[in-house]
Parts: sequence; structure tokens; C-alpha cells
Amino acid sequence: MTAGGPHLWTVILAGGVGSRFWPVSTPRRPKQLLPLASDQPLIRDTVDRITPLIPPERLRILTGAHLAEPLLSVLPELDGGNLLLEPRAAGTAPVLAWAAAELERMDPGAVMVSLHADHVIHPPEAFRALIARAAQLAAGHRRLFTIGVPPTRAETGYGYIHLGAPLSTLDGDAHPEPGNAVAEFVEKPDRETAEGYLAAGTYLWNTGLFVWRCADLLDELDRHAPEFAGLVPLLRRGGPDATAEFFARVPTISIDEALLERSDRVGVVRATFAWDDVGAWDAVARTRTPDEAGNVLLGEAHAVDSTGCILYADAGPVVAFGLTDVVVVRTEGVAFVAQRERLPELKSMLERLPEALRKLD
Amino acid sequence: MTAGGPHLWTVILAGGVGSRFWPVSTPRRPKQLLPLASDQPLIRDTVDRITPLIPPERLRILTGAHLAEPLLSVLPELDGGNLLLEPRAAGTAPVLAWAAAELERMDPGAVMVSLHADHVIHPPEAFRALIARAAQLAAGHRRLFTIGVPPTRAETGYGYIHLGAPLSTLDGDAHPEPGNAVAEFVEKPDRETAEGYLAAGTYLWNTGLFVWRCADLLDELDRHAPEFAGLVPLLRRGGPDATAEFFARVPTISIDEALLERSDRVGVVRATFAWDDVGAWDAVARTRTPDEAGNVLLGEAHAVDSTGCILYADAGPVVAFGLTDVVVVRTEGVAFVAQRERLPELKSMLERLPEALRKLD
Repeated sequence: MTAGGPHLWTVILAGGVGSRFWPVSTPRRPKQLLPLASDQPLIRDTVDRITPLIPPERLRILTGAHLAEPLLSVLPELDGGNLLLEPRAAGTAPVLAWAAAELERMDPGAVMVSLHADHVIHPPEAFRALIARAAQLAAGHRRLFTIGVPPTRAETGYGYIHLGAPLSTLDGDAHPEPGNAVAEFVEKPDRETAEGYLAAGTYLWNTGLFVWRCADLLDELDRHAPEFAGLVPLLRRGGPDATAEFFARVPTISIDEALLERSDRVGVVRATFAWDDVGAWDAVARTRTPDEAGNVLLGEAHAVDSTGCILYADAGPVVAFGLTDVVVVRTEGVAFVAQRERLPELKSMLERLPEALRKLD
Repeated sequence: MTAGGPHLWTVILAGGVGSRFWPVSTPRRPKQLLPLASDQPLIRDTVDRITPLIPPERLRILTGAHLAEPLLSVLPELDGGNLLLEPRAAGTAPVLAWAAAELERMDPGAVMVSLHADHVIHPPEAFRALIARAAQLAAGHRRLFTIGVPPTRAETGYGYIHLGAPLSTLDGDAHPEPGNAVAEFVEKPDRETAEGYLAAGTYLWNTGLFVWRCADLLDELDRHAPEFAGLVPLLRRGGPDATAEFFARVPTISIDEALLERSDRVGVVRATFAWDDVGAWDAVARTRTPDEAGNVLLGEAHAVDSTGCILYADAGPVVAFGLTDVVVVRTEGVAFVAQRERLPELKSMLERLPEALRKLD
């Protein structure tokens, strides 16, 4: 923001449990702590991507107490003051509301940039430029802005945002990225619908990245979310007792359900960067450069006469021979081998394993 | 043998390097030391199978010095006196000749039963009965007897023995297993030829198991094998110097090439037991009872929605999901995953790996 304008603050959602990267991800080492997109953990990438725009002293990480130490160990420039430890896993609406109230009290008029700890984004310069623009829009329009990414494939694993009218026609802003109103949020589509969205050009992937004034978020929750009835004043009061009471009373609910699908003051900014939420092992193949046969090799992995494989050698070497479209994940705990097309069923597969294997430390 | 007849002696060839069971087999832990057919090493199975017929004091293991300690550790009833340590890996002809000379000197007229350390044989009672019968035949006919197994599939990985005339017609013996002359030894056939052998009923798998009088083996080598010219008297003399000179002069050669394909005093006894040489990972599936989906699980292995897989969990659990006909071998050193049909090419695959992986300790 310009000097004298409202401060930007970063909030990073980092409380995930990461079961989709079993057996590498565990409750104490969820996805955001894994080096899935580079040689460093995703959370480290995320912090490095935003701090040139927003300094570490205006960064807060929303997470559980059990992840405090693992997160700080890979983010040594931060300390406990950068953490907002969720009393329980209450969904995105309660924790973002809590964070908004904390920031607003420290820095009235603060603009919050809400990021996920485990997204892959390139190039970082385009990301920062878009976030800065979204912050201008949020401060100017007083809307709750989501970041939408133009789809590059008929992805059935993401939600979509149906673009509404450009905000320039509403507000007379001549900037090349005017932002748009949101016509509709749509859930994960089937294949045919996703292909229609891709062809239409008026649907964006819903990244779950948000930019808004903290005060606007709280006002809109107070106005539209019955789940927060009487709770926003509690948050505004702040302090340990009010926070404890808030989390004791608030239901578990996502920000999409609690507010974004209800409010008429939501906007969307169209991203100019490549984005992936690295949702499962299969997505890792999109974040790395494959070898000539289309294999993605992480760690000491060797693919002989194999194509389309993902080999993740986390604890000693992996050798693949004559395989097609197979994922091999070797950890200290488990050697996991799966046909790639079955990966979306990972969670239900885990239900069929003995508990000791399913629940790795 | 009957009381007062020649003694039976067991000689077990146990010098193999076991590269076909990479990465589990290593120079210091070759196939014969692995629990591939039961819960104990193959060599342990082999010793247990023969000792009810031939006691441990008349058992000798032919192996290399580097395997002395690992072998004795799984055969605690034996000691160094049971080992014949080959000065070098000289092939089966030199080591069997050496063993024959040693046994003949200790026990003139001794009959040698030459076994491999890594064969799977069921049931053991049928095996011992056949060995006893072969020993009678060897002592009576003064032939060099091989054991042949009626083929149960068109195996292209084994050599075959074309049956010659029953020895009863030659010698007038009325026993139900008269033994046969050998019409021909044939190398590993192609698929079509193997199918012809299976249909013909006059071809047996060549097991490489032998029964013969030690003196007869030495005489025949002296008579037919130019590679042994002048060397049999050296063996008969015995002692460290003669043995050293023998191994310094003798070429590396198999007993098949040196003698069996040349001698006219070879016979074959038809086995009544099931036999497998467990030649590669694929063969392990034949030695174990698969689960309902045809998966063979060794160690802590879990197959979910998988068929025809072999999972060998040697160092921590293995989980397979959605795989068909895949072998997963997890050791401390390497996690190896291969399509089953490619296993015959394991040795050439190893050439394409870094030496440190290829040559595991």
C-alpha cells in the first residue's frame, strides 16, 4: 500500500493434517512441512514468496499447538509471536475471524492477505503484484476479494468462481485489473462440466486465497453468518477469556459456507500466475520437471524402462523397473506403491489398513 | 544304504552370489540364506530335508570363505569341519571333483548326494525315498545319476533331460523306479519347444541334483574331461598343497560341460516330488500360498485392490494399492518395484544402476 495507507498483514493457514500425502505426511509433519514443490518445505516457499511485499513482523501463522515447533524450526526468522494457535480445528471461518479481530485491534484499518501454507505459485513477482493490486481493490471497494486462477485444464478437483461484472463498470476504475464481482461459487464439477468451464473462459479456479480489510470481514460475518450470532463483539473485545469463549461457542464452518456464498460484497481478482494446491501425490508431478519418460524423481530415485511414474525416496533409494503410471513413496515408516489413477481414493484405502499403519507418527 | 554297504554323504553346493534376488540378496547374504520358501533360510530347509536320511557328520557344504560364518550361524549344529571352502569360484566340475576325492579318501566307496542349497522340494519324505533309491542305483549300475523332475509347465528357464531307455531293460532290475539312460541334455528351450517337451512326456527338468559313487565321478572325469588332464591324481593325493595346485591349474567349468554331456555312463532318476529352483523373485510366488487375489505377501505386506503382486517386506511395511502383477521388495538398502514380466531382465537392469546400488553389501 502507499505510505500512510492501511498496513498489509499476512495470515497463513497452516493447520492441515495432510492425510492425502500419506505415508510421508503425518499429523506432526503435514503437507506444508514437506518439500513437495522445491527442496524446501512448502511453508518455507510460502513465507519467502510473500515477505518481499509484507515483512515478517506483519505475518501470522494460524496453526495448532502441535505444529508450533515443527513450523518454527523451518522458519527460524519467526518466533512464537508470529503464531496464532487455534484452540481447536474449527474450520476457516472462525480462525480467519479471530485473526481479523486480532489484527484490527493491533492495527486499525489493517488489510489481511490470507494464504494457504501449501500452495505452489509461480512466478513470485506476479503473485506479489497481484496481491498488492487486490489490497488496493479491497481498501477501495470494501469488498472481500478472492483470488481466481484461469484454468489450464478441466480440473475436477477444484471449486470454481463464475465471474460477474467487472468492477470498473461499477466503480469507474481504469486499472487493467479492475476485479470482478462474483456471479457464483461452484463446487467441484464433474468432467463434462469442468470442460465447459475451461472452454467458457468465464470461470476461474477458486484458490482460497483472500484479501480484505479485517474490519470488513468482521462486519460481513456479523451481518450474514447466523453461526456467528453474538460472537463478533466477543472477538472485537479480545483477550484470552473472550477467545476461549468464542472457540467454545462457534461451530466448525468454512469461510465459503459462512460468508462468501452469502455476502453480496465479494469480489474476485484474476491471477496472472500459475497456481497449484498440490492436493495429492499426483499433483507433485505438476510441480516438478519430469525426466524424458515423464517420470518425476524426488530423492535418490531411479526409473528404468518406466514411464509416468512418481518416485519419492524419502528414506533410502527407490528403483522402479518396467512400470507405467505408478507412484512409489518410501518413508522410514512405510513403502507405499500405487497406480496413479487410484490416488484420489487414498483416504478410503487408508480405512482398509491396520490402524498402526494408517496413523503414522 | 543297507548296513555294511557304502556310506551316503551329502554335498551341498552353497557358493552362489544370488544376484537374481537383488536387492535382498547380496554377496554376503545370497539366495540360500534368505527365507524364500518358508520362514527359515533355504539352506536350513535343505539341511533339514536330507539329515533324516544322511546324518550331519556326513554332510559337507561347498562354499566360499566369505559365507562360512553366515552359513554356520543358521546351521548351529554344524561346524567348520562340515565346510569345504573353495579357494575360488571354479564352477561345479572342479568343486565336485574335489569333494569326491576328499570323501573317497575318508570313506572308500562313498556315495555322494550332491544338492543345491537353494532348491524348494516337497514333500521331503518323497525326496529322501528317491535319493535312497538313486543311491542304490548308483552303487549298483556304477552310473552318474541325475535327478529329473516331470515338468508341470512349459518352463523356458530350466534345462531338460531327454529320457533314454529304462535301465531295467539294460540290467534286469524289477524295482518300480529303474532309472533311465540319458538320451540327451538340452539347454533352456524356447516357449514352443518347451510346450513340446511338456506334451511329449519324455523330457524331465534337469535339477542339477546328482547321486554317484565318488570313485566313479573321478574315474569318469579322468577318462572324458580334457580340462582335468593330469589333475585327478593330484586330487586323489589330497592335502593342502595338492588342493592349491589343483585349483590353480583347473579351468572354471560346469559338471554338465566337463562330464555329463560327454560320458556314456550317465543315468537319470525320475523324481516323485515337486521341485523349484526359486530362480528369481517371480518363482517365490510358486513357493507360497497366495491370497484370494493371487498376491504373495511376505513380511508386513498389505495388498489393497491389487492382484498378482509379490510383496516382500524385509525392513518395514509395504502397502500396495491398485497394482497388477507388480513385485515390491523393500530392504534396508533399497525399495525395488518392478513389473513381474520384466524380472527375467533383472541382471541387465542392474547394469543400468549406479554401482553403489548395484553392489549392495
